[in-house]
Amino acid sequence: MLIDKLVIIGVGLIGGSFALALREAGVAREIVGVGRSAGNLEEALRLGAIDRIAPDADEAVRDADLVMLAVPVGQMAALMQQIAPCLGAHTVVTDAGSTKGDVVALARRHLPQHLASFVPGHPIAGAEKSGVGAADAGLFRGRQTVLTPLPETDARATELVLNAWQACGARVAEMAPENHDRIFAAVSHLPHLLAFALVEDIASRANGEELFGFAAGGFRDFTRIAGSSPEMWRDIFLANREPLLDELDVYRAQLDRLRAMLEQGDGAALEKVFSHARAARAQWLSAKQDAQ
Amino acid sequence: MLIDKLVIIGVGLIGGSFALALREAGVAREIVGVGRSAGNLEEALRLGAIDRIAPDADEAVRDADLVMLAVPVGQMAALMQQIAPCLGAHTVVTDAGSTKGDVVALARRHLPQHLASFVPGHPIAGAEKSGVGAADAGLFRGRQTVLTPLPETDARATELVLNAWQACGARVAEMAPENHDRIFAAVSHLPHLLAFALVEDIASRANGEELFGFAAGGFRDFTRIAGSSPEMWRDIFLANREPLLDELDVYRAQLDRLRAMLEQGDGAALEKVFSHARAARAQWLSAKQDAQ
Repeated sequence: MLIDKLVIIGVGLIGGSFALALREAGVAREIVGVGRSAGNLEEALRLGAIDRIAPDADEAVRDADLVMLAVPVGQMAALMQQIAPCLGAHTVVTDAGSTKGDVVALARRHLPQHLASFVPGHPIAGAEKSGVGAADAGLFRGRQTVLTPLPETDARATELVLNAWQACGARVAEMAPENHDRIFAAVSHLPHLLAFALVEDIASRANGEELFGFAAGGFRDFTRIAGSSPEMWRDIFLANREPLLDELDVYRAQLDRLRAMLEQGDGAALEKVFSHARAARAQWLSAKQDAQ
Repeated sequence: MLIDKLVIIGVGLIGGSFALALREAGVAREIVGVGRSAGNLEEALRLGAIDRIAPDADEAVRDADLVMLAVPVGQMAALMQQIAPCLGAHTVVTDAGSTKGDVVALARRHLPQHLASFVPGHPIAGAEKSGVGAADAGLFRGRQTVLTPLPETDARATELVLNAWQACGARVAEMAPENHDRIFAAVSHLPHLLAFALVEDIASRANGEELFGFAAGGFRDFTRIAGSSPEMWRDIFLANREPLLDELDVYRAQLDRLRAMLEQGDGAALEKVFSHARAARAQWLSAKQDAQ
């Protein structure tokens, strides 16, 4: 038994799936849920994700071995302030936010006495659905989770969180918070911004519906991520503003290069870029399949 | 029986699927195949897509009711010159190219005596595979085909081609060639350009493989279309250069708007755009499902 008492604050898709996966793996004895929606917590209880509901986060975390903060980043500061006085020395705290620099800054401000036991994390898993009703013990299986421990973080705290994610079936990578935020600006936040921009480009025209009527699968693949939560993406973009602006500028320079080739009718240059891109993508895909 | 003699020039994915679909619908008596690869034509014969192979396009089109030019646009001029002297008055000619303005210009130059029987067309169907081995009688079922008849085109010629596509299960729309090219610049060519640019953006970095290793499904959806044929997309982009440059500039202006919101930290404005885009996309999807 890895974890005697696990507290999940925010028992939605991510928090609920984490609980279900650890339960299925048999590594958590008691799982306590805390949240703002009584209906959602009742459902979590019914689904077996949690053993009991605690009314207050500060009371709940007493004597916990592991606390998972699976709430939107907008609620994080108040939550950290609330639990700080009640965290025991042996209680490890982790989170599941999509950006890490901002969470680290909040922890430095609101959990300064507890940094040795704080292990920021980001499970890379789909977020198209939400709520505990969509939770799934297999959500993280074969997926990546990134941990970004601080210089102050105790190695045993990191190991506990790493073992928990591995018990969920995730592959775990460790890196500095700023590396995490740069990488995800490039491979996640920028594509979402580009997709929202394309959909809005079409949506702002009088004949938007006609245009979409002629769109084939490629357009729909491309714009699927623009169906994600506007609030969540607003928060992610603002939290990761600087790296995202950098990535956007690099991308616009690439687009300008292609535009110049197109304007000059330079077919050989265009074909060279497309071939290079296609070959790189094919190689990444096969490298990734080998790794899984 | 709609078509007594059908000639397919270029029996690949599109030409082969058109032949198989018309055969399955029982509307073509004899189907003759012409092409540059003997191996591909033998396979087309074996698969039942064609009844016989003709060695030369000019001989093959004699007495044909319908000729489908399903070759890359780069081969179109020479092909039109070759068949022009042998086309009978009752022979209707159509094509399946992804751009229409360029094909219309070629027809005006090389088939000036035959414009009354020329019906340019564009079936909207996936092109990730190629060759007759990937051909499928159901490829066009429920998909759109756009016809762009000229002012000179005889209504009976358009009707024959329309009936043939409907027999394949396609929904057929008619519009002017320049409208077609503007619409597809927006919903197909621009997204492909953006996806190639994003993949090249990542591929041109020393840590491209590491970055891709952290990419989730959204990134892969987004970049799937960058796996398409570089030669084909080079040709499409060059053929539709002006409308694509216009679309690219509109898109860049949209991206600049979002960049300014992000730089100013204007979360309310970002959320408004994302919500608008998401709602429009959801509405288009449901309108499209209703139409099918």
